Amino acid sequence: MSSTAGQVIRCKAAVAWEAGKPLVIEEVEVAPPQKMEVRLKILFTSLCHTDVYFWEAKGQNPVFPRILGHEAGGIVESIGEGVTDLQPGDHVLPVFTGECKECAHCKSEESNMCDLLRINTDRGVMIHDEKSRFSINGKPIYHFVGTSTFSEYTVTHVGCVAKINPLAPLEKVCILSCGISTGLGATLNVAKPKKGSSVAVFGLGAVGLAAAEGARIAGASRIIGVDVNSSRFEHAKKFGVTEFVNPKECKKPVQEVIAEMTDGGVDRSVECTGNIDAMISAFECVHDGWGVAVLVGVPHKDAVFKTHPVNLLNERTLKGTFFGNYKPRSDLPSVVEKYMNKELELEKFITHEVPFAEINKAFDYMLKGEGLRCIIRMD
Amino acid sequence: MSSTAGQVIRCKAAVAWEAGKPLVIEEVEVAPPQKMEVRLKILFTSLCHTDVYFWEAKGQNPVFPRILGHEAGGIVESIGEGVTDLQPGDHVLPVFTGECKECAHCKSEESNMCDLLRINTDRGVMIHDEKSRFSINGKPIYHFVGTSTFSEYTVTHVGCVAKINPLAPLEKVCILSCGISTGLGATLNVAKPKKGSSVAVFGLGAVGLAAAEGARIAGASRIIGVDVNSSRFEHAKKFGVTEFVNPKECKKPVQEVIAEMTDGGVDRSVECTGNIDAMISAFECVHDGWGVAVLVGVPHKDAVFKTHPVNLLNERTLKGTFFGNYKPRSDLPSVVEKYMNKELELEKFITHEVPFAEINKAFDYMLKGEGLRCIIRMD
Repeated sequence: MSSTAGQVIRCKAAVAWEAGKPLVIEEVEVAPPQKMEVRLKILFTSLCHTDVYFWEAKGQNPVFPRILGHEAGGIVESIGEGVTDLQPGDHVLPVFTGECKECAHCKSEESNMCDLLRINTDRGVMIHDEKSRFSINGKPIYHFVGTSTFSEYTVTHVGCVAKINPLAPLEKVCILSCGISTGLGATLNVAKPKKGSSVAVFGLGAVGLAAAEGARIAGASRIIGVDVNSSRFEHAKKFGVTEFVNPKECKKPVQEVIAEMTDGGVDRSVECTGNIDAMISAFECVHDGWGVAVLVGVPHKDAVFKTHPVNLLNERTLKGTFFGNYKPRSDLPSVVEKYMNKELELEKFITHEVPFAEINKAFDYMLKGEGLRCIIRMD
Repeated sequence: MSSTAGQVIRCKAAVAWEAGKPLVIEEVEVAPPQKMEVRLKILFTSLCHTDVYFWEAKGQNPVFPRILGHEAGGIVESIGEGVTDLQPGDHVLPVFTGECKECAHCKSEESNMCDLLRINTDRGVMIHDEKSRFSINGKPIYHFVGTSTFSEYTVTHVGCVAKINPLAPLEKVCILSCGISTGLGATLNVAKPKKGSSVAVFGLGAVGLAAAEGARIAGASRIIGVDVNSSRFEHAKKFGVTEFVNPKECKKPVQEVIAEMTDGGVDRSVECTGNIDAMISAFECVHDGWGVAVLVGVPHKDAVFKTHPVNLLNERTLKGTFFGNYKPRSDLPSVVEKYMNKELELEKFITHEVPFAEINKAFDYMLKGEGLRCIIRMD
């Protein structure tokens, strides 16, 4: 039992007071975990586009003041009533979506979209009592996607916490909480390319490169990277990408270019940009008879996917995925093991590192499009 | 060796001289099979919508005079050079699409869209020498989808012929050449519903009822039939359909009605109408997390499939199929066995029977929407 169990913890957190304004490191009070909750000491967190998206809050429901952050590694400090799967000292990854293990989705082998704990970006409070566990001078500071990892301590639902191998370096595996697993799982769990097959990856940011890494692990012989920014091509080679296409430099639709490169189309494609035209191209560039296209990127809410039905009738498959179809608690530990046994390479995703006090630098890197993942050290 | 081998056979055939005009029974000359071809004696044939479609030739490339027909059962009369898989006397089903066993599609486990012998509705001649094997007084009469079964004898490519159990009654299993296998395979091979699951079938014509039959065989516990013609509902019960929805009688989109009936959506759907709105409904009515929608019906060439990408990202799968994903030569014999072992019930699809001389009656039944399949006896 930790000495802080059951007590309010005072610690540092980076608070987003207003949309688009630099985060401010504040001293916050973190209440003890309630029923089915755990309190975590965060050791490392990293910045993902989704944090920036909700920080900018353009066209979003603004929920402020808020503690952002959802890619992280930490240690269980204390547990609330009813928690049996975790105990203080466990090494964990908090996850923005959960697994209650009891709903129809959790019981389905095919779904990870838990009814109870599915991502909810508007909610700033805990499910149990609809209150925040964070406060400053009694004033609540809102949670973000159930994780709020830009804090030395945070409280999460037990269903949003994956217990992992305690030997795994948290400063590396923390990036598996969101984007990297999303891209990796899109390829390994959904597209499922066979050894020797061809895979096109649309978008060579962190998620797309993780999808390429999945194709490399699966033994794809051709991995075609597609991006409108040619400067990304060189770095992408480290992730197994063998060929590159910049749609802006093509004289015909990129799906036609890829079909010509591959004698009719790639075996699999993974779309990681969220751009609706890229989604359509990613679908139409797969081979008839057996091609599978997987959509990962989240589009504008008014976007419409359009294609001629014959593209489907010619035996193409179109699927979407959420968090790479990984069930957070059941499956993430095995992804960590893929890193531990050197099958999955995480180091190449980590391009920057800053101390917690300089967290706004991580935002600057991302806004400038520099690098892939910036690790934020909490100590 | 049959006494007619190597010789021209004079026999009766129903010739379509012009678009939309009644077929005329004529005496035709059927040349011997050439390289990789076989000549078949047709015993039973049945009428499918596709025959009517190309007979009407509305908006189609008109190819006349032509011998239509592509659902049939017969016996090999003689074989051409290079044919080793078949011999005279074999019981067979000719098929409108083929399986060369050598192209990338045939070698893929996932595809049946043979590069060499894939359906070609414009071609009226044989692949080998681009000539017709049918003639009247030296004037060629064109083939239809490589089968032309409205003739006592026909010539087909060996890759378009499935050798089946000689004990199977050809007057029943002849309907497996096209529509029934298309619907059945869409469910059994592509949608793959689990035992106890829910399946929606859009369109309760022969193909849709075959899709329902597939769901019944798979052990689906709820089979929801969707059709704008409520008079089809009663008959559909014989095919395992348990519930009915007529979109014309719904006050909200049928996908919403089905989602309410099924706590969020059906596990699988199969679309057999080709109507673009039905296609979209069939996709959007499957459950998030695990739902699979399969498109079978062929739409208007200008139709556009549209949906919000979030419907995909919420882990729905959209697939199309062609001939139920059955490889004609490899897989049809096992479908015949499903009938032989009483798993698959074919009798309920056969609602009419006419002698060859009255073949135009079969067209009348179909144009009036009466019944499902009309068997045409050639003797």
